[in-house]
Amino acid sequence: MKDTFYHYIVDLQNRITAELEAVDTQAKFREDIWQRPEGGGGKTRVIENGKVFEKGGVNISAVHGKLPEAMQKMFNVSEADFFACGLSLVIHPKNPMVPTVHANWRYFEMYDADRKIIQQWFGGGQDLTPYYLFEEDAIHFHQTCKTACDKHNAEFYPKYKKQCDEYFWNTHRHEARGVGGLFFDYCRATEQMSMQDWFNFVTEVGDSFLQAYVPIVERRKELPYTQAQRTWQEIRRGRYVEFNLVHDKGTLFGLKTNGRIESILMSLPPHVQWIYDYHPERGSEEEKLIRVLEKPKNWIN
Amino acid sequence: MKDTFYHYIVDLQNRITAELEAVDTQAKFREDIWQRPEGGGGKTRVIENGKVFEKGGVNISAVHGKLPEAMQKMFNVSEADFFACGLSLVIHPKNPMVPTVHANWRYFEMYDADRKIIQQWFGGGQDLTPYYLFEEDAIHFHQTCKTACDKHNAEFYPKYKKQCDEYFWNTHRHEARGVGGLFFDYCRATEQMSMQDWFNFVTEVGDSFLQAYVPIVERRKELPYTQAQRTWQEIRRGRYVEFNLVHDKGTLFGLKTNGRIESILMSLPPHVQWIYDYHPERGSEEEKLIRVLEKPKNWIN
Repeated sequence: MKDTFYHYIVDLQNRITAELEAVDTQAKFREDIWQRPEGGGGKTRVIENGKVFEKGGVNISAVHGKLPEAMQKMFNVSEADFFACGLSLVIHPKNPMVPTVHANWRYFEMYDADRKIIQQWFGGGQDLTPYYLFEEDAIHFHQTCKTACDKHNAEFYPKYKKQCDEYFWNTHRHEARGVGGLFFDYCRATEQMSMQDWFNFVTEVGDSFLQAYVPIVERRKELPYTQAQRTWQEIRRGRYVEFNLVHDKGTLFGLKTNGRIESILMSLPPHVQWIYDYHPERGSEEEKLIRVLEKPKNWIN
Repeated sequence: MKDTFYHYIVDLQNRITAELEAVDTQAKFREDIWQRPEGGGGKTRVIENGKVFEKGGVNISAVHGKLPEAMQKMFNVSEADFFACGLSLVIHPKNPMVPTVHANWRYFEMYDADRKIIQQWFGGGQDLTPYYLFEEDAIHFHQTCKTACDKHNAEFYPKYKKQCDEYFWNTHRHEARGVGGLFFDYCRATEQMSMQDWFNFVTEVGDSFLQAYVPIVERRKELPYTQAQRTWQEIRRGRYVEFNLVHDKGTLFGLKTNGRIESILMSLPPHVQWIYDYHPERGSEEEKLIRVLEKPKNWIN
């Protein structure tokens, strides 16, 4: 399973970066290959200062070795070996009419002293963070998520949509990071779902990513915008930074276990602003976005 | 003691904001008075888009009530009433040749059921974060700190200077936030130091702040700078954000105990950049700063 999934994310990284370069028409991803001293490594691909994408990363990694102490506690096991691989991406477009997107698909294995697998699961998801709300974009993104889910289990979309709203909740701001999507974790074999079934589901979602995001980029990337709208985007990016640095478990885990900092923090937006106690005007497009973030809605009935 | 110290910080806030307005010559602080639903409140003063100061806050607060659960754990007590007051400031100048400064002075009391004080202490400090290193500025700042400390105890400066270097260590970047200053906490009455002695020491440091910072601002604020130097400042401000959101105990405590968010996050800089894997040129002024941050040095022999 681990080799199969690893080959899948290698191929998916290639497909996603090729397609995003085609959309951008100008910038190319640069690639950094890195090794983890304790075992494994990764391939980080970053695009900057593109025509469409101001900054973005599409990274894969496959790491293994002794389970770090922080994770032993988390999973309630003593010493064990582990393997983990995944693809993580965050794309920050230049035009404030184009939403930021984040996605991640990952697989995890833990072994006993005889190298027998004692635990294994999949996790992941994809979610959208607009600066200006086009309802049809949120609906398209969620519909694509739902179509991928429904091929596997009709309960998945509502369940993972809700988990996404809960996970990407910026507690100290009392608002969601964005308009959500899917979030799932600890997808383990059950009577209903074998690991192969989970693999089929997770890769279905991974395969849906470009279809979920690229049409939105295409229809918004040429829209005109003002300097004030750009300022609003940079203020909202501040909330993205706050979520990632204060609440995001993956980011904090990476920072506290000596992960490759630049690969982890590629998720942070390029230009960001913090203005004291900023509130958009009543009835404005900016306020409309906030109202939706304060109370996550169902985009599909 | 609590009334005496509260009156001290009220007066100090007035002195500091008046002096900084005089230095800026253009922008004024705006004041927000807020109430804490559980008891007490604060007076937040923020300056933005000044000639010299791009963003800054000089805030006081005095809060009381039942000790929040998170603090019960921290101080290893069960239910108790508390009182806490303090002044917190962060100033982000526009010109990258002028360093950012942070300072904080605070007093804390805890009571038993009969309103008898069971614990009380002072804490605080002040520290400097340059974007371009002028050694004489770091020396002046530290010398002013040392002069204030030495009036009370010759061991204070080396001890609190070291604690400052340790506290403002950006672990995941393997570098200090800035060139340090003083950091002290849990200053309780001992045989050598009564609470009155601590009050005298803490207010001595508070009184030294303007002398420590303003001369540096005055001699750098008119220096010319390039767009590239401004970019470097914004990148380094990103490290400031990372420290405050990932490591700073005060910030995280405020965020997790429903503090007044805008007063807490006034510490975040106005314009910030994150560029993937940015490294300054070998031998440049930018690299010189990093070398010093990687290995905090003694500014005074």
